[in-house]
Amino acid sequence: MTDTDDWLNAVAFNADGLVPAIAQDKATGRILMMAWMNRESLALTRSTGKAVYWSRSRSALWKKGESSGHEQLVDKIQLDCDGDTVVLIVTQQGGIACHTGRESCFFRTLHNGSWETTEDVIKDPTQIYNK
Amino acid sequence: MTDTDDWLNAVAFNADGLVPAIAQDKATGRILMMAWMNRESLALTRSTGKAVYWSRSRSALWKKGESSGHEQLVDKIQLDCDGDTVVLIVTQQGGIACHTGRESCFFRTLHNGSWETTEDVIKDPTQIYNK
Repeated sequence: MTDTDDWLNAVAFNADGLVPAIAQDKATGRILMMAWMNRESLALTRSTGKAVYWSRSRSALWKKGESSGHEQLVDKIQLDCDGDTVVLIVTQQGGIACHTGRESCFFRTLHNGSWETTEDVIKDPTQIYNK
Repeated sequence: MTDTDDWLNAVAFNADGLVPAIAQDKATGRILMMAWMNRESLALTRSTGKAVYWSRSRSALWKKGESSGHEQLVDKIQLDCDGDTVVLIVTQQGGIACHTGRESCFFRTLHNGSWETTEDVIKDPTQIYNK
């Protein structure tokens, strides 16, 4: 263990070795997405300055924007009182965080007991991923 | 199942029956906290208009602000693309979400490899909880 591990040791990863990470847009304040990080991805996020998550479905490191180009440049990493959740303040490349082509993954809002889509698609996903 | 359950059925609760819920301040845009909800707490959040979480440590419903008075009045409930995370846009009573007496639970920021406290205590916790 090196000195540089101290900050990682303060993070309370869960039984699966993961911590939720919430990305918030620095400019707009919009909550863009929530994903998971393991110790390695959090360390890489700091060292590279770009958000790296852990894909639970693929059981692999997930460099955000690797296929879409929609990288997240990390301005701040924040930790909560009990150390089990992280916030990333980011600059969202392309202004699109969601794989559906929207700014935010939280594009559904509850209205009168139904989820309504309240955010437009900025770019067709087929144009994002089939370059 | 009633009509009013449809929106709840769209939520992908995890194996423990829980979903992460992120509270964001409507006025300031600050991410205040992240906690967990089960189906009942999410339903109660909607029906009461106040954030109700599920306390994993106490295995009980947790009416935010019940002891502190720092309730969260819910303006919007939003759901992400894969339905497994919720955002609450709230008005934070007292301007304090954290049990440490700070606005936000995310009061630590990584600077040069160390977590630094970057947010002041607004009210001493002993004054919040020992009324």
